[in-house]
Amino acid sequence: MSYRIEKDTMGEVKVPSDKLWGAQTERSRNNFKIGPPSSMPLEIVYGFAYLKKAAAYANCDLGVLDKDKRDKIAEVCDEILDGKHDDQFPLVIWQTGSGTQSNMNVNEVIANRAHQLAGKVIGEGEKTIQPNDDVNKSQSSNDTFPTGMHIAAYKKVVETTMPGVIQLRNTLHKKAIEFKDVVKIGRTHLMDATPLTLGQEFSGYVSQLDHGLKALESTLAHLSELALGGTAVGTGLNTPEGYDVLVAKYIAEFTDLPFVTADNKFEALAAHDAIVEAHGAIKQLAVSLNKIANDIRMMASGPRSGIGEIIIPANEPGSSIMPGKVNPTQCEALTMVCAQVIGNDVAISLGGTQGHYELNVFKPVMAANILQSAQLIGDACVSFDLNCASGIEPNHEVIKQLLNNSLMLVTALNTKIGYYKAAEIANTAHKNGTTLKEEAINLGYVSAEEYDAWVKPEDMVGSLK
Amino acid sequence: MSYRIEKDTMGEVKVPSDKLWGAQTERSRNNFKIGPPSSMPLEIVYGFAYLKKAAAYANCDLGVLDKDKRDKIAEVCDEILDGKHDDQFPLVIWQTGSGTQSNMNVNEVIANRAHQLAGKVIGEGEKTIQPNDDVNKSQSSNDTFPTGMHIAAYKKVVETTMPGVIQLRNTLHKKAIEFKDVVKIGRTHLMDATPLTLGQEFSGYVSQLDHGLKALESTLAHLSELALGGTAVGTGLNTPEGYDVLVAKYIAEFTDLPFVTADNKFEALAAHDAIVEAHGAIKQLAVSLNKIANDIRMMASGPRSGIGEIIIPANEPGSSIMPGKVNPTQCEALTMVCAQVIGNDVAISLGGTQGHYELNVFKPVMAANILQSAQLIGDACVSFDLNCASGIEPNHEVIKQLLNNSLMLVTALNTKIGYYKAAEIANTAHKNGTTLKEEAINLGYVSAEEYDAWVKPEDMVGSLK
Amino acid sequence: MSYRIEKDTMGEVKVPSDKLWGAQTERSRNNFKIGPPSSMPLEIVYGFAYLKKAAAYANCDLGVLDKDKRDKIAEVCDEILDGKHDDQFPLVIWQTGSGTQSNMNVNEVIANRAHQLAGKVIGEGEKTIQPNDDVNKSQSSNDTFPTGMHIAAYKKVVETTMPGVIQLRNTLHKKAIEFKDVVKIGRTHLMDATPLTLGQEFSGYVSQLDHGLKALESTLAHLSELALGGTAVGTGLNTPEGYDVLVAKYIAEFTDLPFVTADNKFEALAAHDAIVEAHGAIKQLAVSLNKIANDIRMMASGPRSGIGEIIIPANEPGSSIMPGKVNPTQCEALTMVCAQVIGNDVAISLGGTQGHYELNVFKPVMAANILQSAQLIGDACVSFDLNCASGIEPNHEVIKQLLNNSLMLVTALNTKIGYYKAAEIANTAHKNGTTLKEEAINLGYVSAEEYDAWVKPEDMVGSLK
Amino acid sequence: MSYRIEKDTMGEVKVPSDKLWGAQTERSRNNFKIGPPSSMPLEIVYGFAYLKKAAAYANCDLGVLDKDKRDKIAEVCDEILDGKHDDQFPLVIWQTGSGTQSNMNVNEVIANRAHQLAGKVIGEGEKTIQPNDDVNKSQSSNDTFPTGMHIAAYKKVVETTMPGVIQLRNTLHKKAIEFKDVVKIGRTHLMDATPLTLGQEFSGYVSQLDHGLKALESTLAHLSELALGGTAVGTGLNTPEGYDVLVAKYIAEFTDLPFVTADNKFEALAAHDAIVEAHGAIKQLAVSLNKIANDIRMMASGPRSGIGEIIIPANEPGSSIMPGKVNPTQCEALTMVCAQVIGNDVAISLGGTQGHYELNVFKPVMAANILQSAQLIGDACVSFDLNCASGIEPNHEVIKQLLNNSLMLVTALNTKIGYYKAAEIANTAHKNGTTLKEEAINLGYVSAEEYDAWVKPEDMVGSLK
Repeated sequence: MSYRIEKDTMGEVKVPSDKLWGAQTERSRNNFKIGPPSSMPLEIVYGFAYLKKAAAYANCDLGVLDKDKRDKIAEVCDEILDGKHDDQFPLVIWQTGSGTQSNMNVNEVIANRAHQLAGKVIGEGEKTIQPNDDVNKSQSSNDTFPTGMHIAAYKKVVETTMPGVIQLRNTLHKKAIEFKDVVKIGRTHLMDATPLTLGQEFSGYVSQLDHGLKALESTLAHLSELALGGTAVGTGLNTPEGYDVLVAKYIAEFTDLPFVTADNKFEALAAHDAIVEAHGAIKQLAVSLNKIANDIRMMASGPRSGIGEIIIPANEPGSSIMPGKVNPTQCEALTMVCAQVIGNDVAISLGGTQGHYELNVFKPVMAANILQSAQLIGDACVSFDLNCASGIEPNHEVIKQLLNNSLMLVTALNTKIGYYKAAEIANTAHKNGTTLKEEAINLGYVSAEEYDAWVKPEDMVGSLK
Repeated sequence: MSYRIEKDTMGEVKVPSDKLWGAQTERSRNNFKIGPPSSMPLEIVYGFAYLKKAAAYANCDLGVLDKDKRDKIAEVCDEILDGKHDDQFPLVIWQTGSGTQSNMNVNEVIANRAHQLAGKVIGEGEKTIQPNDDVNKSQSSNDTFPTGMHIAAYKKVVETTMPGVIQLRNTLHKKAIEFKDVVKIGRTHLMDATPLTLGQEFSGYVSQLDHGLKALESTLAHLSELALGGTAVGTGLNTPEGYDVLVAKYIAEFTDLPFVTADNKFEALAAHDAIVEAHGAIKQLAVSLNKIANDIRMMASGPRSGIGEIIIPANEPGSSIMPGKVNPTQCEALTMVCAQVIGNDVAISLGGTQGHYELNVFKPVMAANILQSAQLIGDACVSFDLNCASGIEPNHEVIKQLLNNSLMLVTALNTKIGYYKAAEIANTAHKNGTTLKEEAINLGYVSAEEYDAWVKPEDMVGSLK
Repeated sequence: MSYRIEKDTMGEVKVPSDKLWGAQTERSRNNFKIGPPSSMPLEIVYGFAYLKKAAAYANCDLGVLDKDKRDKIAEVCDEILDGKHDDQFPLVIWQTGSGTQSNMNVNEVIANRAHQLAGKVIGEGEKTIQPNDDVNKSQSSNDTFPTGMHIAAYKKVVETTMPGVIQLRNTLHKKAIEFKDVVKIGRTHLMDATPLTLGQEFSGYVSQLDHGLKALESTLAHLSELALGGTAVGTGLNTPEGYDVLVAKYIAEFTDLPFVTADNKFEALAAHDAIVEAHGAIKQLAVSLNKIANDIRMMASGPRSGIGEIIIPANEPGSSIMPGKVNPTQCEALTMVCAQVIGNDVAISLGGTQGHYELNVFKPVMAANILQSAQLIGDACVSFDLNCASGIEPNHEVIKQLLNNSLMLVTALNTKIGYYKAAEIANTAHKNGTTLKEEAINLGYVSAEEYDAWVKPEDMVGSLK
Repeated sequence: MSYRIEKDTMGEVKVPSDKLWGAQTERSRNNFKIGPPSSMPLEIVYGFAYLKKAAAYANCDLGVLDKDKRDKIAEVCDEILDGKHDDQFPLVIWQTGSGTQSNMNVNEVIANRAHQLAGKVIGEGEKTIQPNDDVNKSQSSNDTFPTGMHIAAYKKVVETTMPGVIQLRNTLHKKAIEFKDVVKIGRTHLMDATPLTLGQEFSGYVSQLDHGLKALESTLAHLSELALGGTAVGTGLNTPEGYDVLVAKYIAEFTDLPFVTADNKFEALAAHDAIVEAHGAIKQLAVSLNKIANDIRMMASGPRSGIGEIIIPANEPGSSIMPGKVNPTQCEALTMVCAQVIGNDVAISLGGTQGHYELNVFKPVMAANILQSAQLIGDACVSFDLNCASGIEPNHEVIKQLLNNSLMLVTALNTKIGYYKAAEIANTAHKNGTTLKEEAINLGYVSAEEYDAWVKPEDMVGSLK
């Protein structure tokens, strides 16, 4: 492999000739061989591209960067956002906790690529654009990384997580309406209980997701606050007046998302409670989805020796040894995602607790975890919707049989003959393996006519939606 | 000990004569000897007292309970809320996951106590009030327990957690203003960085708590939704028309808190995402408080071989072996609370994932954990405020000395001579153990006058609040 | 209330006259009003009683404490261990993270009580025994608290956790043998699978608990290492030569447990990985128990519309609204305990990460959590054993019916006619709602005789135990 | 792109012509678009390659597979282990929870590649090797996936985690010896305490890692138990006699690791406590490493306004805005890894709790998390060792200055003049900003000679190692 020499304040470093990065990126590559390379999410890199472009515009407007440099920086940023340089970001999550090295990776790539765009050869001649003095102007890793991670997380939440959850929510809502007259046995403690409709069950899932979406939406305000302009410790040292507000305005414009400058830059560097907050809501959705997926796989269990009240799509052969088996695989994928998200929440909380003085240095691990969770929840909801939820059908025959068998229909008699006598009927029928009606009459508590008039499952499902 | 005989649908049980509870409470006492007795939080019992009284009123209004029974039930509920029967609730958290046995405990105590109030002897004569048919009328454990836990959690959050956090927040805000001109060295990565004011540091803490309070407030809407009226599976079986709305209205009136009936009762029984959501925000506050407490103990470390920039109150002898030692004990208590709350969050999330069909049976563990967290955060903030935060004073001498020593003041030269030359000055001073000014002049990059004009810590702290 | 004056190095404090504690305890009571009083587990106090007595003996043997003082200290320690002074320890978990105040609480109670035993009145005359110079001789909070918590945790694990788990394990093992010929349908993915015996299922539970017990036992070695003798920072300052080994020997003698002095006192003060390690194994048991309890409640579900393969004891009425309902309440209590333990593990891990320099100041929260988990797992296993596991019976009729219905018996044909043809038979029977045998013959793949000879559930359960 | 047609029991599927996989892999690719493709760790694929080869050998030995098929299967397995087919495994973690689809992916790739090796074109002619009937012979996903994940996890732990931790442990041990005479101030509660040596501090770290390594080693026995031979539900259906023991023997031979067949196959399929157990020990190491890394970055803090007792290597420029800054970046990477591992532990515990009946369907998420944690801890220890620990040097000047300043040296006087007088000396010196010696003499408690004789830091560090 051929190399060129790059320099930073510590001296010279050999960098592969065909790479755009510089000395500091290369140092980090060598010093942090932890896990697979390039684990720093590309979404963070794109977040940086937005902010570097915005910074160039703000700096130019405020008279500290010339227009030509601004345009060169912006051009490279656009190339990055087009995915043209995805292989120029080799660094890992497990680097310095401020993400300085990824900031420098972006600075170096922009500077070197701008040199190329100026028709020059990297490593030859005066740098067209300086990575520190130009690309990083009015910035610090300490305010760029949190800005980049807010941009990345916000985008992921509104572009992947929420649409995915909403898509599934809408299908479940459609099913809730579709199934509104399917009366079935209820179950509490996993035991037979009084009836409800399958639609009512699904309406509960919809309500869970609606609350979760609202909770997630509530967290966006905190996430929309950007650290940029705080520079090294939050004071905004070395930034021109008005820069913080202006640069946030540009980021909002370039991303078409309602970003604003953080009211308090000291918090924005030293704590990442906005990430903790947003991930808390994603975790809440994971809790909800886990419940929903569990219900569906239990109701679909069988086909002959389980519950079997609903039929889910058969998407793939279920077993490499048991022919003809069809499994609730989408439920499994979704609940595994939920387990991961609940684990990620702990990693994020832990990182969040550990800010010290002016800087939290658990930025990359917090960023990587929220991006993973946000992606997985969104994707898993879409997958679950397309390959499972939208194809759910009631197994009317099984539903009817399990409903009519149930001893819990006796509850309808509570208000007629009192709890104690009703219990006696149920217990006797259970002991004798008989029906409620038989025992209700045998025990002399109701007549056959009364029983038929009073115990009607379809009258027991109420009018609560 | 003397006993009386109580009965339920399963038969007779011996109950200590001097106790108000009945058969089902006694069965639970015997069947669940897990951990210390009476671990079910009294707040839950009080939540039940509110809802039993409200149910009696709603039932009476809707014509299914007579006025005399209503008043007797209400009278006992008021006694319970006055703390007169705290020793009548011996059950543990680790019982049935629906909390049925605690519901019955309340039902039985109310019924027996009402019998006494009617001038009769418990166990003698027809029961004045039936625990199931009267006290529990239009109710089920499945909707009462979640209602009780929402009442308890909501009250705890607004009466203990939020006031505690606000008290601390206000002190920190006062300190932020008080310290607004105390210029000190900043630290990032625990390393010396550019200066800021002590007031700016504290403003970051205030901003964290403000965001946390806002996040917690956002969760109250979900917590204000009550399950009552859903009865066994959410359908509202055996409730009179309009009951759910009316009973919530009474609860709101009796507690003076904005409770409403849950839009969707199926969610309200089968999932406790409202608890997950509220605790998520409490956990976020724990994350913030942990950061704040850590900073304060690090800044107070010393007295001679630490950082020592602030002085915290000496409340107690710090060491049983090292005389004269004063420790940041309030920081320690607070961060231990934070660790507990972050652990509790996992227990709650886990419980939240495990609803099955129409019921989540992790209610008591979820309730106990949120009540503990909400209490501890509130109490710990008050304790931290009174015994530490409100007494914090800057150690001006140390602050000044550490500030003036710092090499990071060189950052002020970036915009004058560029990042590379500035770095060279700092590195040379570091190597030689000299001052920045000496080396800046030696290296020929600035004159003494320029240095003095450009490197002023007080000019480096910006105007960002 | 009447008070007396107690003093410490910071001055005078008023203490209730009828209490044995002194100035530092009283300060802590006032300064740490966090959560309910007396939350510091009594087991920790008892651990202190053992070690204070052992220290007195070791100090006496080594010539730094006279025999009379030794005996007085030992006498009070024995009284504490007899439970005579349980109300003299009012402090909370949420105090200084070294537990200094609880150490002083014990020192003060011993000193004052010794004064009484010497026939004197507390607060009058020269102290018979000094809390710091005598009771705390050759000690520091920093080595006593971790010693006390190791004693408490070790005792709890071997006296409560392990016996409880073993009791349940033995019942499950008995059931595994009892059920060894009960052939039933297997289930994977919650879906029907090939058969096994109920005994085999239970043998899996036994194997889980055996592995868990072995894992827990492996952690005892670390837990048996005592910090005592390290004093303030691990160097053993102010202890007589040989003290650390001798004091551990006395503790081992008094507790009848194999305690030894820690090889490395610096670890023993600054890190509590032994607690992390032991709790990790308790958490593993929680994971296992959660699986077992879930299986049992699913298999017991019904009685008519669930799985219903086993019958569990009916210990209490299950519902306040649905008469005749019996619920798997012991499973619910046990799984709630498991959720708590998994949450506690996070609190403990978090505390464990935060040792700084020579001391970890998350001792009380770590101690409280492991003691709670160890107690709850032990108690819940006993409760589950007595009230559920030991009464489990197969429902032979249901088991047989579900087995014979199953399509997964087709797997027996894989080795005869190949996976693809076997799958075709199962799919056809599923589609047509027919039996495997019918379709196997219809499709011409096997004769009736072959089918009967090849598809025998009892031949499909293998000989693996 | 060109495609060929592949078939499974559900029908035809189009597969890219240049890929070796078949119908079921392709279905999974389409049905589980969750997160980035190919997220199923390659280590799992390699685990499968070992076990498929071992199964072929065992099947052949036991007369159910012919020698030619065995050799073809083995040849492809060896190619996979050589990394020649890494791009043939496109599936994600978030698939069916049994990992069936990854099992089939391996089966299909082996079958198709064997067809090629036989000189034929994939998709043409009779399959040389059948993926289900030959490659998967005597197997099920349910026993192969857990076998593959045990192989992968065991190898990762012994080849990456343990060597990495040992390498760091050995460096720390070397440093402990190197620094054994460097007397420094101790710190408890972050506050000045009595002295110890820097070597003693490091010996505590070594002791932590030694205990952690022992704990991790203890978990290997459980991890060495292989599920293979249990097939679908643990009964070993469709396996020849003696197969389970023999196949484990082959796996042990091929991997050169002490694998054995699991005593109880029902546990081995339905629960993954071995993963919970092993990860628990990895998490314990994370807790220890977090403590160590925190200490080192605090002791290295400065350079001028922090603690500054040690000097760590300067590996890269520390700040993009503050010139000359050097940060404890390796500590940051390591502690971020620790946060991830503690989060992963929760994901694994959660997955572990959720086995149902005969199968745990959280296998892929559990496998992926333990592999990530095991890799990260190993890699991060090596990185931390090479780039930080091995270069740590004491800053003797600072150490001496901080030591001699300290008021805690007064502890040496406890045994001479009592705790109370010693405390008075320290308090007075603290108040007056004077030295201990001055005040000790002023107060008349000791003479100058006594002070010098009694207060010697180097005599206060004890002889405890």
